[in-house]
Amino acid sequence: MNAARLPALRALLDEHALDAILISRSANKRYFSGFRLSDADGPTSGFAGTLLVTRDANVILADTRYTEQAANEAPGWEVVATAGPMQDELPPLLLRHEVAALGMEAGVVTHADWAALAEAAPGVELHAIDDELVPLRMLKTAEEVEAIGRACAMTDACFTHLIEFVQVGMTEREVAFELERFFRVNGAEGLAFEPIVLAGARAAMPHGRPSEAVIDAGNVLLIDFGCSVDGYRSDMTRTAFVGDAPDGIRRYHDAVREAQRAAIDAIAVGVNGQELDALARRRIESDGVEPYGHGLGHGIGLETHEPPRLRRSESFTLEAGMVFSIEPGIYLPGVTGIRIEDIVALEESGPRVLTTSPREALVIGS
Amino acid sequence: MNAARLPALRALLDEHALDAILISRSANKRYFSGFRLSDADGPTSGFAGTLLVTRDANVILADTRYTEQAANEAPGWEVVATAGPMQDELPPLLLRHEVAALGMEAGVVTHADWAALAEAAPGVELHAIDDELVPLRMLKTAEEVEAIGRACAMTDACFTHLIEFVQVGMTEREVAFELERFFRVNGAEGLAFEPIVLAGARAAMPHGRPSEAVIDAGNVLLIDFGCSVDGYRSDMTRTAFVGDAPDGIRRYHDAVREAQRAAIDAIAVGVNGQELDALARRRIESDGVEPYGHGLGHGIGLETHEPPRLRRSESFTLEAGMVFSIEPGIYLPGVTGIRIEDIVALEESGPRVLTTSPREALVIGS
Repeated sequence: MNAARLPALRALLDEHALDAILISRSANKRYFSGFRLSDADGPTSGFAGTLLVTRDANVILADTRYTEQAANEAPGWEVVATAGPMQDELPPLLLRHEVAALGMEAGVVTHADWAALAEAAPGVELHAIDDELVPLRMLKTAEEVEAIGRACAMTDACFTHLIEFVQVGMTEREVAFELERFFRVNGAEGLAFEPIVLAGARAAMPHGRPSEAVIDAGNVLLIDFGCSVDGYRSDMTRTAFVGDAPDGIRRYHDAVREAQRAAIDAIAVGVNGQELDALARRRIESDGVEPYGHGLGHGIGLETHEPPRLRRSESFTLEAGMVFSIEPGIYLPGVTGIRIEDIVALEESGPRVLTTSPREALVIGS
Repeated sequence: MNAARLPALRALLDEHALDAILISRSANKRYFSGFRLSDADGPTSGFAGTLLVTRDANVILADTRYTEQAANEAPGWEVVATAGPMQDELPPLLLRHEVAALGMEAGVVTHADWAALAEAAPGVELHAIDDELVPLRMLKTAEEVEAIGRACAMTDACFTHLIEFVQVGMTEREVAFELERFFRVNGAEGLAFEPIVLAGARAAMPHGRPSEAVIDAGNVLLIDFGCSVDGYRSDMTRTAFVGDAPDGIRRYHDAVREAQRAAIDAIAVGVNGQELDALARRRIESDGVEPYGHGLGHGIGLETHEPPRLRRSESFTLEAGMVFSIEPGIYLPGVTGIRIEDIVALEESGPRVLTTSPREALVIGS
């Protein structure tokens, strides 16, 4: 699977007059080589596996903690054991491969590393290649969509479990921990991100963290969560009513649900992402409410948030192979928050919603 | 607590002819302002709270997701709500505060962000200030040592629990999950790092990850784990015998324990870190075994790994206020691994070991 991805990367060498590309972003390392690093082993850990791709060589530079793992997970790659920092290890390798122009991910490499390499290899021109790498991962193959689908299916199963699990009197953290337990016990690689579990007025914080706050009857309970399966992520939000909720709040749930449905119904190859965002916003505004301050959605794959971004400020055309979230919301500070989020894969024939948990306002905890 | 730390930061302005310092590293944000961001909200999330400190102003730039939190957690700081990237938001602020020379953390700011800011604010000189910031957090106050001590005490309590919990037939992941559950239920902020739980020959990987591998009778079980309490971290490793272990392996445990004891006994103000490392290595080599390929230890505080580093290549003098790990090991690929790690605070009167779980070779799981 990974080997088939290298020609597109190599094509960038000619297009941008580069002799090699250095891959430092964890998700890109895994995408191109199969080499798996946890987020904790990210770009800041230096040489926990950096890829160097030239016209005729695939090299993983890894320190001795990771050489065995790299050899196992990335067959077909030459593994070079490193002992020092990038500015010491890379120049001899660049010399050996006659690299005079090197593409690098300026968006993840620190300025200190970049500057040190520039000084240690004065004969090598360093070029930022971030934007050029984006399209390579943005359009997913059927195999990748299936992997995201497996993560979404496990997230649906987890939500079914949570509906039964949640009881009045539990804390937000207990629920967050239970969903993590479910994912781990059922074989997920891990969480896609720190889950958001917020009760009552706390749901008004779009990125609040689970706390010791107790879930009371009459609260809404907002759960935004996802897992990672074979590296691919899911991301889903549901807002349920605990016991029951006043009609006033129910109305907001209906508005968000209709805004989401309007956006999903409008998804098609050739549509502009901005239009979807505008559609969802208009639906909520028509109810006399201020819509979400965040974007309508984001691409998802080996990272939870990746291009494309569906938001007011970003114009782009939807293409078959894109997989992204649709997550409108209403936030009333001090009162409550409502968000509904699903993952949609856009295929030639139209959108396919990968998360399938019920979207109506569920009453739970009783 | 945090306000008392600002004079030392401001002193750097005069020392290095700077008008302001921008703080991007999560642990430094918390150290200087009290503003808490999870690791996931790290430097790559842009403006999830960046500090700007001038001679007379303390400013937090945060996007609207975090402005309320910043105002609550960092009293005395002006919170500026941001909507765009650093290169758009920062220049007007630098102009208002008449900043012509700005210190930045080149080791965490990406090259893309650095270059974009340099272009957007051509009148402002950008200087890397990373090395100058290191001494500020390296020497801990008594209050900080107490906080690390609380995390260590919870880690000891967790180990006591694990000794009872572990049974033959469990998987590494079950044990890893149980220790995380223990920390969360008992009020830790979170894990200090992804725990390492390795059985049998898998313990030979210094940074292996817990897997579905089953813990068998006769295995060693290596557990390297820690938690975060009030932001401060713990880090401890114990290697236990499941059921019982052959005498041959017991001998290695003894060698590691004696190497660790020799290093801890030698800790004193004025000693060179390299000497400790050499001492521990010699003790293991005298047993005819290859010692650990990693360093002997690392500083710990608001980050699990921070300066100073105790390793062969680094010469530095131990000072009162340093808190660091001592963690020698023996790794026999394909056979087993043994590591014992404790956290030591160096006080004027000598070393104080903050983790207190038994260091002898425990037999568990029966």
